[in-house]
Amino acid sequence: MAYLDENFLLHSPTARRLFHEVAKDQPIIDYHCHLSPGEIATNHRWGNLAEIWLGGDHYKWRLMRANGIDEDLITGGATPREKFQAWAETVPFTLRNPIHHWTHIELQRYFGIDLMLTPDTADEIWERCNEKLQEPEFCVHGILKQFDVRVVGTTDDPADPLDDHLAIAASGLKTLVVPTFRPDKALLVDRPDLLGPWLGRLEQIADTHIVHLSDLLAALQKRHDDFHAAGARLSDHGMDRMPALPCSDEEAAMIFDNARAGRAATPEQKEKFSFYLMVFFGQLDAARGWTKQLHLGAARNTNSRGFQLLGPDTGYDTIGDFRQGSALLTYLDALAKNDALPKIVLYNLNPADNYLFACMTGAFQDGTFPGKIQYGSGWWFLDQKNGMELQLDALSATGLLSRFVGMLTDSRSFLSFPRHEYFRRILCNLLGSEADRGELPDDFEQLANLVRSICFGNAKRHFGFDV
Amino acid sequence: MAYLDENFLLHSPTARRLFHEVAKDQPIIDYHCHLSPGEIATNHRWGNLAEIWLGGDHYKWRLMRANGIDEDLITGGATPREKFQAWAETVPFTLRNPIHHWTHIELQRYFGIDLMLTPDTADEIWERCNEKLQEPEFCVHGILKQFDVRVVGTTDDPADPLDDHLAIAASGLKTLVVPTFRPDKALLVDRPDLLGPWLGRLEQIADTHIVHLSDLLAALQKRHDDFHAAGARLSDHGMDRMPALPCSDEEAAMIFDNARAGRAATPEQKEKFSFYLMVFFGQLDAARGWTKQLHLGAARNTNSRGFQLLGPDTGYDTIGDFRQGSALLTYLDALAKNDALPKIVLYNLNPADNYLFACMTGAFQDGTFPGKIQYGSGWWFLDQKNGMELQLDALSATGLLSRFVGMLTDSRSFLSFPRHEYFRRILCNLLGSEADRGELPDDFEQLANLVRSICFGNAKRHFGFDV
Amino acid sequence: MAYLDENFLLHSPTARRLFHEVAKDQPIIDYHCHLSPGEIATNHRWGNLAEIWLGGDHYKWRLMRANGIDEDLITGGATPREKFQAWAETVPFTLRNPIHHWTHIELQRYFGIDLMLTPDTADEIWERCNEKLQEPEFCVHGILKQFDVRVVGTTDDPADPLDDHLAIAASGLKTLVVPTFRPDKALLVDRPDLLGPWLGRLEQIADTHIVHLSDLLAALQKRHDDFHAAGARLSDHGMDRMPALPCSDEEAAMIFDNARAGRAATPEQKEKFSFYLMVFFGQLDAARGWTKQLHLGAARNTNSRGFQLLGPDTGYDTIGDFRQGSALLTYLDALAKNDALPKIVLYNLNPADNYLFACMTGAFQDGTFPGKIQYGSGWWFLDQKNGMELQLDALSATGLLSRFVGMLTDSRSFLSFPRHEYFRRILCNLLGSEADRGELPDDFEQLANLVRSICFGNAKRHFGFDV
Repeated sequence: MAYLDENFLLHSPTARRLFHEVAKDQPIIDYHCHLSPGEIATNHRWGNLAEIWLGGDHYKWRLMRANGIDEDLITGGATPREKFQAWAETVPFTLRNPIHHWTHIELQRYFGIDLMLTPDTADEIWERCNEKLQEPEFCVHGILKQFDVRVVGTTDDPADPLDDHLAIAASGLKTLVVPTFRPDKALLVDRPDLLGPWLGRLEQIADTHIVHLSDLLAALQKRHDDFHAAGARLSDHGMDRMPALPCSDEEAAMIFDNARAGRAATPEQKEKFSFYLMVFFGQLDAARGWTKQLHLGAARNTNSRGFQLLGPDTGYDTIGDFRQGSALLTYLDALAKNDALPKIVLYNLNPADNYLFACMTGAFQDGTFPGKIQYGSGWWFLDQKNGMELQLDALSATGLLSRFVGMLTDSRSFLSFPRHEYFRRILCNLLGSEADRGELPDDFEQLANLVRSICFGNAKRHFGFDV
Repeated sequence: MAYLDENFLLHSPTARRLFHEVAKDQPIIDYHCHLSPGEIATNHRWGNLAEIWLGGDHYKWRLMRANGIDEDLITGGATPREKFQAWAETVPFTLRNPIHHWTHIELQRYFGIDLMLTPDTADEIWERCNEKLQEPEFCVHGILKQFDVRVVGTTDDPADPLDDHLAIAASGLKTLVVPTFRPDKALLVDRPDLLGPWLGRLEQIADTHIVHLSDLLAALQKRHDDFHAAGARLSDHGMDRMPALPCSDEEAAMIFDNARAGRAATPEQKEKFSFYLMVFFGQLDAARGWTKQLHLGAARNTNSRGFQLLGPDTGYDTIGDFRQGSALLTYLDALAKNDALPKIVLYNLNPADNYLFACMTGAFQDGTFPGKIQYGSGWWFLDQKNGMELQLDALSATGLLSRFVGMLTDSRSFLSFPRHEYFRRILCNLLGSEADRGELPDDFEQLANLVRSICFGNAKRHFGFDV
Repeated sequence: MAYLDENFLLHSPTARRLFHEVAKDQPIIDYHCHLSPGEIATNHRWGNLAEIWLGGDHYKWRLMRANGIDEDLITGGATPREKFQAWAETVPFTLRNPIHHWTHIELQRYFGIDLMLTPDTADEIWERCNEKLQEPEFCVHGILKQFDVRVVGTTDDPADPLDDHLAIAASGLKTLVVPTFRPDKALLVDRPDLLGPWLGRLEQIADTHIVHLSDLLAALQKRHDDFHAAGARLSDHGMDRMPALPCSDEEAAMIFDNARAGRAATPEQKEKFSFYLMVFFGQLDAARGWTKQLHLGAARNTNSRGFQLLGPDTGYDTIGDFRQGSALLTYLDALAKNDALPKIVLYNLNPADNYLFACMTGAFQDGTFPGKIQYGSGWWFLDQKNGMELQLDALSATGLLSRFVGMLTDSRSFLSFPRHEYFRRILCNLLGSEADRGELPDDFEQLANLVRSICFGNAKRHFGFDV
């Protein structure tokens, strides 16, 4: 079989039929990503291949560093063409890394280029891609149309204005672009230096004064309402592990007052306050019928030198081995026992925890909504074939794959939509191969329905997107 | 290949030969399960399919909740037929969950029905199964005979009477039904409210007064003897993780006295007391030549609302990520260094710990009995194809698969005996496929002996059952 | 396919080509092992098969114990022939354990024997092997030549004399035999009874007096220099988990003074002192351009009875589940932020940590050397097919397989060189099978280069061996 041909990753007849006849043409609901609302609103265009392909892509930066490339050619002062050349030199060394697949699928799907990227082909690819970037349809809206993206869920701070989202809604863009409520900064009682300015922004956007905790809660509630009005149906939280220390209203108020006055919370206070707010956020989501996403297990900014030079999200994060079980159970139970458990999607970053997370969902399903508690798609470092297959196996073995809301890109790049195709190939391959060996029913229509649901229908229904 | 046909899960010629010529007809030793001795003694019959299939089956309940089914139709007041319908609606959504395999294998093996269970076939299946349930041989004894079950090891509290076991022994039933000594309640020094009534039951059955710790130990020793006389050859313990704090006789006595007087042990005292008793239990087993089973890693009753409504074993348990290594090593070493290490079977619930458990067995083998320390079969959420293959691989890579005592159902249902067939297919597939690709010797008789040993011979010899 | 034939483990056409045309004839760089420098210097010969095959091999001992063999026949007073018989009785029970593969590959490669070892063939194999041991080329130097071993990296204490290495260098042996700096004993401030005598040996070899910490550091620096002069390019450390408590110069000096005076460090002091020295060792390596190996995660001497009878390295170690992430990140960051991060190879023993370790390397790559931070080969209990494939998959998914320094034996036995062949077959099978299903480029020369690099070229360049 030729590398990356039309049957890429599809290793049985039914796998191929499922992909080509069913999965391939399903629309995309990219319900969680980090695309820029501003770039969608302005229908951004790109000046050159380095900008769209290497700018901000810390996956590639890590591999370039691992390949011995000087930082100047990665995030430094080198020219776009020089950086592209350094990337072209690295790509042949990425065999068996998912980047090698993605790189060439992106060249095929966006630029119509079938070449392998190497130092030898770098010139030609640079030229042809940059030409392509000049074509009228090579813009944000053109890409969303090409990939039939029906929903984009961006990731937004409660203190962010939603102007871009309003502009997009008014623009006639066919894709529904909705914000996601990600209030991580509200937990920063251990960093009054960061909390204060953020509260300032929140005061402004919520048109209120935030003196006491009750003011903060009211402002957050208001922004949750605003987000809902702007189409939001999901919240999101990123933390190494869930907080789990109980915290009374009085304690929370005291911790907040201190932080507001510049006195940093202790680690214990921080955990208490975080738990307190996380319960509050759960209640907000439950009341609105939203879905709460929990991204757990990342160790961030671990290389302090790199972090100081380049800031966050530059390739210095990694997988942690935090103990997740007990605290997460405490949190889910705290919501469930108060009848305030919203729909949830749990994402883990350490694959050692796959079964832990997958199985936990089963203890909190309550019959009120199919697939209410979801075990989410392979995330970040696990968003690749091995990671996806492990996630699908743990989910299938302990729960209902049929109710799975499926893939999302979690990406900062408009070149990432083929990740949905990648996931779909892997899904179809699993299902088709098992059907062809008699481990799933030999009933194409039943399998086709399952594929359709996971690619599109489940997400549409679960999140309530009217598309 | 047709779904669930005779070569289900058997993907190479030698795999098929091993299963059909060797494994299929081996008798069953179900050395650990939760079947009711009372139902065996009375040769129970079932009124309808819902009773035998859905009653008490929290695996199914979890999936029904995950499918959005109201609790009334799961454990509530709905009629058996309504509950069955809800299950029939859920089954098509269970593709890739082992329940889909088990459901249809059970329909085939017990009821002779080849249909897929769906809302469309629910009526026919309900009728045909209920008819079948009326046939004379559809009773506990008939089932044990049909599946050639030579041994059933039930799970029993030391305070339980063994009347049912004596009745079974006297009944002429060909299956050897033996109790298993599971004294978990003896550790409840943190819950005097539960410990007291249990001690009352133990006093009665052991015909003694339990005032001090020495009385408790004597009563437990007596019941261990009684269990032995009733054929018991295994003990069992379920805990999230092993206790490991050393505890003197005096401390243990003091903790017990306090609990007896209604003063609950602190967590540290509970751990000490538990370690103390676990060492005592190890000594009892070692002296009798028994095998001790340790089931570690479950987080139980995690959903407090569900637990309050329905009690334990209703689907609100899950996999924990407790740190297992150090404490378990401490326990095994405490027994080994006092020459009181019995035969052991270690079961883990978090597959992340597979190699941890499998490899640990190797550090405590002492040459006194082949396969003395066993790494047990995939347990509970891991009792499925993926879980079994991971267990078999970890065991094989670090120890002697040839000495493995093999499968057990751990089940509460008389419909679970095909799980042995399921396991055997997976085992034969692993061995046969590897032989056919040259990774195991091309020596059918050697492989057949291996299969026979794991299916039956090893358990018979290891536990010393005279069947 | 016949068991262990020339295409053993090679399941696709390209896999077979890659192995036979490329991997098979690559020289060996065994950059980390525990071979005896003395036996290399004296060009040791072996008296009988039991000596070379069973002596010191705790992998085999564990399996014999698991098979119910009495210790007398394992490490006790039985004759070599009796011990060999006990091993021959055990081998048929090792199916699916890597020992079954290794045993027969070793018989084939070293002794030209194609038989399966069983009690029936034991006599013939014993005779033929012992004859073979008498042949002139069956000696250490002959074996190194037969397997084209270009580099052997032994494991040495800073207090060890390097006389054997000097003798080897002077002997004209074509294999470069270099020491590895493994200063684990320097951390023993909690065991003044062990530290004192070791310091005595270090004083002697470094020709100095060690009174204060500064003396110790100077002596270690001197020995590091001496090792460098003797060709060393790697250091090595074995610990359950990295220490991570910060420690000032003054604290470290005080802890050392106390230990020197016979006052054992507390656990906290031990951790602080260890962290202090580990940072110092990192600086030494960075200054010299060496590579630091970290072997983390073993629980050693867990069976105190076995340990008391036989001492360390006798089969009573196992896999631990220590939390590794945070401490290891702290250590790497402490070096990186002071510009003193050497090349590193991380090895883990618990496969649950594969992704944790593999991914962590990516956060500390700094562009100064290709593959600077390596995720090392499957170690000890993981040095087998399942373990290797999991390591290769985690490495590939999160980093650059193309820069991997590949296999090492970590062995105490001169019969272990076929482990490189074993690894190469597994590597070629992965790559070739994926190429043949279109998941890697259909470009044989590119794949061949990758194989050559991992088998030989990367290690040569990474460690700077001039061979």
